[in-house]
Amino acid sequence: MTWYIDQGPDSDVIISSRVRLARNLTTYPFPHKMDANQAKQAGEEIESAFFGDNQLMRKQYLALDLDSLSDEDRMSLAEKHLISDQLAKGGSGHRLIISRDEALSIMINEEDHIRIQSMSAGLALENAYQSAAEISLIMENKLALAYSDKYGFLTACPTNTGTGMRASVMAHLPGMSMAGGLKNIVESLSKLGFAVRGYFGEGSKSQGHLYQISNQLTLGFSEEDLISDLKRIVQQLTEQERQLRRELYKHRGLAIEDKIMRSYGVLKHSRVISAEEAMSLLSDIRLGIALGLIHGVNASDINRLYAHLGPAGIQKMNGRPMSAEERDVSRAEMIRQTL
Amino acid sequence: MTWYIDQGPDSDVIISSRVRLARNLTTYPFPHKMDANQAKQAGEEIESAFFGDNQLMRKQYLALDLDSLSDEDRMSLAEKHLISDQLAKGGSGHRLIISRDEALSIMINEEDHIRIQSMSAGLALENAYQSAAEISLIMENKLALAYSDKYGFLTACPTNTGTGMRASVMAHLPGMSMAGGLKNIVESLSKLGFAVRGYFGEGSKSQGHLYQISNQLTLGFSEEDLISDLKRIVQQLTEQERQLRRELYKHRGLAIEDKIMRSYGVLKHSRVISAEEAMSLLSDIRLGIALGLIHGVNASDINRLYAHLGPAGIQKMNGRPMSAEERDVSRAEMIRQTL
Repeated sequence: MTWYIDQGPDSDVIISSRVRLARNLTTYPFPHKMDANQAKQAGEEIESAFFGDNQLMRKQYLALDLDSLSDEDRMSLAEKHLISDQLAKGGSGHRLIISRDEALSIMINEEDHIRIQSMSAGLALENAYQSAAEISLIMENKLALAYSDKYGFLTACPTNTGTGMRASVMAHLPGMSMAGGLKNIVESLSKLGFAVRGYFGEGSKSQGHLYQISNQLTLGFSEEDLISDLKRIVQQLTEQERQLRRELYKHRGLAIEDKIMRSYGVLKHSRVISAEEAMSLLSDIRLGIALGLIHGVNASDINRLYAHLGPAGIQKMNGRPMSAEERDVSRAEMIRQTL
Repeated sequence: MTWYIDQGPDSDVIISSRVRLARNLTTYPFPHKMDANQAKQAGEEIESAFFGDNQLMRKQYLALDLDSLSDEDRMSLAEKHLISDQLAKGGSGHRLIISRDEALSIMINEEDHIRIQSMSAGLALENAYQSAAEISLIMENKLALAYSDKYGFLTACPTNTGTGMRASVMAHLPGMSMAGGLKNIVESLSKLGFAVRGYFGEGSKSQGHLYQISNQLTLGFSEEDLISDLKRIVQQLTEQERQLRRELYKHRGLAIEDKIMRSYGVLKHSRVISAEEAMSLLSDIRLGIALGLIHGVNASDINRLYAHLGPAGIQKMNGRPMSAEERDVSRAEMIRQTL
């Protein structure tokens, strides 16, 4: 199911879980070494391996030539975290297979020949992994994948070699941000082999207290171990976040309620709003829902807004290119209607 | 009628009109030279002249010994502009006669023995003058008032001598403030013999784009001339303000609508709010009503909030002394309920 329709487990803190598996063909050089013809052939082989003559799969999944999409369509997929920024930028030979519910996607000829990605709502890493692994099995059965008994799956970038897996969650951590303990947590997680990034991935600043937490290690561990390690860490983090929220609300309840309700008032009435401000105010609404202060709107409504409020998402919704001001107006309207 | 219940003429720009007449008895030194006994006697004479044996007047007016009121009650009267700050501070011999609808008040033993004050909603200076003059006539018929054929009414401060009249309007000038032309207007008005002050009178900063405009001259002109001069100036100002609002809305409509609606959202949802912030946001609501952007609330609702949102007004409403935070919470609640 589309991750932002469902709420999923621990949705008060964890927005979504994501697992990405990198796979490569032995029969072609890595994408950055391929010519256009090789990229085209590799893409066709991968698609045909995936679909076979299964008509049901053809109904459930869409195969797209990313180069034939408009810039807005590509950017909108990236804003939803369905493709990477690299693929969104365009360039030839990039293809995408995507399930109609947007939970599963296969990027073709990005950094690796095949990148399978699965998203689930809330803290559901096993679920996300399971779905991605099933796709990987289809590929393994039909294609010659680059695999070493010693290292595991071989990838274009050595940091992915082994499981080829990157598992992550998107966490909403306003309690930790407000309590000021986030810097320490990022450092400790980093020592334990986990990376913490902003909402828009590597190098991005956090927006709206959203943080992506992912495994850094890929080599020398089983997928199951990596998943359960990340899950355990995220569960601890979730408990800490809840504890901090309770304490903040206990000691600064009035100020926090005031801040949340003001953000709610602004979002319900603003006529022009930037994506950045919207992310920041929606963070308050999400916290307000978790604290039981805001009713009639739930965490998945907010997640759906996160997924669609980017510049490309707004343009896609309107079906036309728009100026920055037009987007800000349309975004404000979308948010008012949701709340 | 209580000025903040009614809207009055030109209420989109002019909140209220006020006329104050200063009168003194020949039989006593000016208040700053009186001893406690003289102040008591003078007060009794003035009250008895005012009420006579008229039982209807006793029903319509209340006679108060200001010293016997609590600090909050006195401050609340001052926040409503019904008594001066000087009287609010306390001190012996201060009395007040006030109509139950709060439109008319007579301060006794402030700077002058008698200061009659009349307030009306909107631009209604003649109306306010008429009511004050009627009270003055009652006094003139029964008391020996200090009057010189050459100068007119004599007052403790020479700047009031002559008519003893100060007429003023409270104007809401967000258009002029935003367009940046207010400084020039204040200077020109000053050259023409009018003073422009903030909401809280002499020396006060403007809050929420509210400005008090009053005559400075009192000597050598008839009351009628002074009133009609002020009225003409205020009408011009009102037209200018309307014009500037229209232009602003025409050229920056979206930004202005956004600002107004955000202020509305914040006021409808905030849980803690200072008097200063409330004045500032209510200014946007008042403008929004005038521009037809906000419905279901009218200018007099906003005026009523202005009159009650001060620290003393909030405490009076709650009937008890309150900390600053308690007042900010109660103020936010009062505003939410009104909007």
